[in-house]
Amino acid sequence: MTPEKLALTTTSPVAKPVSAGGADTALARELTRQLGPKKVLSNLSERLNYRYDAIQFGVTPLCVVLPESTADVVAAVKAARSAGVPIVGRGAASGLSGGATPLEPSLVVSFTRMTRLEIDPARREARAQPGVITLAVSEAARPHGLVYPPDPASLRTSTIGGNLGENAGGPMCFKYGVTGDYVTGLEFVDAGGEVHRLTREAYDLAGLLIGSEGTLGLITDVTLRLTTPARFTRTLMASFPEVGQAAEAVSSAIAAGAVPSKLEFMDQACVGAIEDYLHLGLPRHAGALLLVDTDGHDLETVEEERALVEAACLNAGGTVRRAATDAEAAALWQARRSVSPALGRIRPQRMNEDIVVPRSALPEVVREIRALGDASGLTLVQFGHIGDGNLHPNILFDPRKEDAHAVHELAHRIALVAIRHGGVLSGEHGIGTMKRDFMTDAVDPVTLDVLRSVKAALDPAGALNPGKVLPDAVKS
Amino acid sequence: MTPEKLALTTTSPVAKPVSAGGADTALARELTRQLGPKKVLSNLSERLNYRYDAIQFGVTPLCVVLPESTADVVAAVKAARSAGVPIVGRGAASGLSGGATPLEPSLVVSFTRMTRLEIDPARREARAQPGVITLAVSEAARPHGLVYPPDPASLRTSTIGGNLGENAGGPMCFKYGVTGDYVTGLEFVDAGGEVHRLTREAYDLAGLLIGSEGTLGLITDVTLRLTTPARFTRTLMASFPEVGQAAEAVSSAIAAGAVPSKLEFMDQACVGAIEDYLHLGLPRHAGALLLVDTDGHDLETVEEERALVEAACLNAGGTVRRAATDAEAAALWQARRSVSPALGRIRPQRMNEDIVVPRSALPEVVREIRALGDASGLTLVQFGHIGDGNLHPNILFDPRKEDAHAVHELAHRIALVAIRHGGVLSGEHGIGTMKRDFMTDAVDPVTLDVLRSVKAALDPAGALNPGKVLPDAVKS
Repeated sequence: MTPEKLALTTTSPVAKPVSAGGADTALARELTRQLGPKKVLSNLSERLNYRYDAIQFGVTPLCVVLPESTADVVAAVKAARSAGVPIVGRGAASGLSGGATPLEPSLVVSFTRMTRLEIDPARREARAQPGVITLAVSEAARPHGLVYPPDPASLRTSTIGGNLGENAGGPMCFKYGVTGDYVTGLEFVDAGGEVHRLTREAYDLAGLLIGSEGTLGLITDVTLRLTTPARFTRTLMASFPEVGQAAEAVSSAIAAGAVPSKLEFMDQACVGAIEDYLHLGLPRHAGALLLVDTDGHDLETVEEERALVEAACLNAGGTVRRAATDAEAAALWQARRSVSPALGRIRPQRMNEDIVVPRSALPEVVREIRALGDASGLTLVQFGHIGDGNLHPNILFDPRKEDAHAVHELAHRIALVAIRHGGVLSGEHGIGTMKRDFMTDAVDPVTLDVLRSVKAALDPAGALNPGKVLPDAVKS
Repeated sequence: MTPEKLALTTTSPVAKPVSAGGADTALARELTRQLGPKKVLSNLSERLNYRYDAIQFGVTPLCVVLPESTADVVAAVKAARSAGVPIVGRGAASGLSGGATPLEPSLVVSFTRMTRLEIDPARREARAQPGVITLAVSEAARPHGLVYPPDPASLRTSTIGGNLGENAGGPMCFKYGVTGDYVTGLEFVDAGGEVHRLTREAYDLAGLLIGSEGTLGLITDVTLRLTTPARFTRTLMASFPEVGQAAEAVSSAIAAGAVPSKLEFMDQACVGAIEDYLHLGLPRHAGALLLVDTDGHDLETVEEERALVEAACLNAGGTVRRAATDAEAAALWQARRSVSPALGRIRPQRMNEDIVVPRSALPEVVREIRALGDASGLTLVQFGHIGDGNLHPNILFDPRKEDAHAVHELAHRIALVAIRHGGVLSGEHGIGTMKRDFMTDAVDPVTLDVLRSVKAALDPAGALNPGKVLPDAVKS
C-alpha cells in the first residue's frame, strides 16, 4: 500500500464526491420506478452520509437503496447488475475495518429498515432480518428466559447483518463464541439476484458467507441460536505496573482452569483516554488494567473462578479490586464500551488492528507492540478481548500533521508481530480495507488464489463490495 | 435413485472388481517409482480391502497409496492428476454414509500412516496428522489436564481426518460442539497438488473443507482446540412405554434449563439388538430408553441438572434409574457405543440416516418415523443424539431377500419427514452417497448450482471423491 492509497482509504474526507449524472441517475430512476421514491436516496446530500463507517471514509455512492424485504434486495441487485454498478451492503456502519465503505462509485444497500425479529422460545431461536439492532435480540429473548450472547461493543447501534458480515465478537465471546457460532441458518441474495436458504450442512456455504463482508452475497435473513443467561456474575478489575504483567496474569489464570465470561485488557494510554472522557476514577497511572467477569449457574463456582483469576493477577504483580455492587460492575463495563468514542477525542483518525495471537504468546506480543509504538513516535494504544488473545492495537493520528506512510508502516509491523507469533490479522472486525494489504503476509499466494477462485465462483463479475478482504492479484 | 443404483452403491459385494492393467498399472508404477514400494498397494487382494466403509460397498480402487507425509500426498495427487484418475481420501473407513467408498476406479489415499500427534499444553492445542485415532488425542492430552471433547461412537477406530471429512459428532456434542468447532487451523492439499495452510479467518475456507468428505481437498494436518474435562459426571437411564414420551422428556428437560453433556435415545428395537449382543440387562420391553450424563466443575450443579432431567422423564411417563457406580455408568455407555455392531448382527446391510430436527418437533418426528417403519414391513430402528435433535433411523435389510427399492423409498420418506419439520439430512455422518439423492429435496436447485460452482472452483476437473455430497445436475 502506498501512502497515496492509505490517504484515499483512511483520510479522504476531502475526496471529491462523484457527481450525480449518467449511469448512476439511470440506476436511481430505475430503482425508484421499481421500488417507489421512499426506498431510494439519490440526492448528493443524502448519499454523502453513506460513504463512511465508524473510522474510515470511502467514496460517495452513486445511489442508496433502503430495502424493506428480500424482494427489494433482489430488485436492487438485479438493477445494479444491469447497470454494471458495484453493490455495497451496509448495516449501522459502526464497523472498524472499512467493510461498509464504498471504494468505487456504487449502489449502497442499507439494511436499516429490514428489522423484523421473531423469537421462537420452544426452538430457542431468533429469526432476524439484517437490520435488527444486535441488542434487540437479547431484549426480545429475555422475557422467555433466553439470551443472545455475542456482544460487540457497538451492540446498541450495530446490526445483526453487520455482525454477520464481520463475524463480530465481543467480551462475552471468550466463553460463549462469536456471531457465527450462533447462526443455524441464513438466507442470502447472490450476485445474480437469486435467493438462497442455507443451513449449516455440507458444504458450509453459510459459514463462508459469515465474515465475508458482503463480498460473496447479501444476507437477508438469519436464524440465531439463543441460550439461557448465567444466573450469577462477579466482576473484578486488576491493575498492573506494566502491560506484560497483565498478559502474564491472563495466561496463568486460564492455564489454572478459569473460564471467565469476559476478560478485557486496556493499556495506560487507553485508560487515560477513558478517564479524560468519563472521569470514572480508573487508576490512570497503572501500566495496564484487566476487567474480568466470571459467570455461571452456581454462585460458589463463579466465586471460585474469580478467586483463580485474582490469584493469577496478584502473582503477576497486580492489584485487585472487586466490584462490590452491580452499579460498580456496570460502571466498569461502561468504561470498556467507551473505548472507541474516547479514542476518537484524541486524534481525528485511527488505524485499528484486530490481531489474535496464542494466549501463551501474549506477554511477549503486548511488550513488542508497546516497544514498536514507543519507538515510532506515534500515539499507540492497546486494548482488547485478551482472553481470546484478541488485541486491538490502535494508532491514533491526525492526517494533517502525521505521516500516513509512518502510520501504515507501524500498522504493518504490528501485523507482522502477530503473524510471527502464530497469530492472525482479524478476530472480529474483519479484514475490510484496513488489513487487506497485510493479507499477503498472512496468507500464501497460492492460497490467496484459491480464495479468489471461491470469490469468483460466487461473484464472477466482482460486483459485490469490490476492494475488500482479498488483496488484488499481482499481475505477472 | 433407481433400485439398480442403490444395488450398486449399497449392496455390491458381488460387484466385479476392476481388473489391474492399463492406466492403473501405470499409476501404480509411477507412484512406486516416486514413493517406493512400501507406500503403494497395487495387488488386487490388497486393493479389495479399500472399497468399503462401515456399511457401504464401492468399487475396487485402481491403486492405494499410504502416504507418510504431506509431500507424499502431494506426489500422489499430482500423479493421479497426470493419469486422469479420481482421488478418494480414506481414514479408518468407519464412516456411515459412504464418504470413503470409491464410486469409480480411483486412487485411494489412505491416511493411516500419518499419525504424528503433538500436544501444546500452553496453547491448549493438539496438532494432528489425519491418521491419528480420535481417542488418541484425549489420551495424549489427559496428562496435561486437557481433553478433546468430540466423541463419535467409533472414537477407538476412527481418525481425526475422517472426523473432519464428515464433521463428526458424538454424544458429548450436544453440550460441547462437533469436530469443526474444535478446529483452529488446518493444512490441505488441493486438487492440483498445492499445499495450503488455513486459519479460521475470512474467508472461512477451513470451515468449507470440514464436512466436505474429501471432495474439495485432502486435509493433511489439523490444529485442534483442547479444553479442561469436567470434574463431576452423573449418569441416569430412563425408560418409557412409548418412543414419543422419551422425545417429550428431552424437549421439556432442555426447556427447563438442563444442558446435559450427553442425551441419547434408543428405541425398543435398538435396545433389543444390544441385549441380544451384550446381555447387559437393559429393559428390553420398554418402548424407548434415554441415557443421560450431566457434568461440570461443581457437583451440586451437576446433581441439580440431573434432577431436572429426572423430573422431566417422570412427568413424561418414564421410569428412572441412576447409575450408582462408575462401573454401572460405563456399562450403560458401552451399550450405546455398541449400537452399530449390534445392528450388524440383525441384517447384513443397513441404510443409516442422520437427520437433525428442532427439539420441539422431536415427539412428532419420532412417532411419524416409527409409524412409517411399522407400515413398511421393513426392520426400522431409531436411536441418536436426541439432545441435538439428531436421530439415526436405520433400516436393516438383507439385499438377497428384501426389496432395495422399498428400502430406498422408506429412507426417502424419513428424509422428507425431517425436511418437513424444518430439519436437515445430516448431523454428523455426512451426506456421502447415502443421502446424496435426498439433497434435491433439502436444497433448492439454484442453491445446488452455487454449491456446484464452489466445488468447481476448488476441483475444476471433478477429480476429488466424485459422486459424493452433491447430486448430479439434471441435464437440461
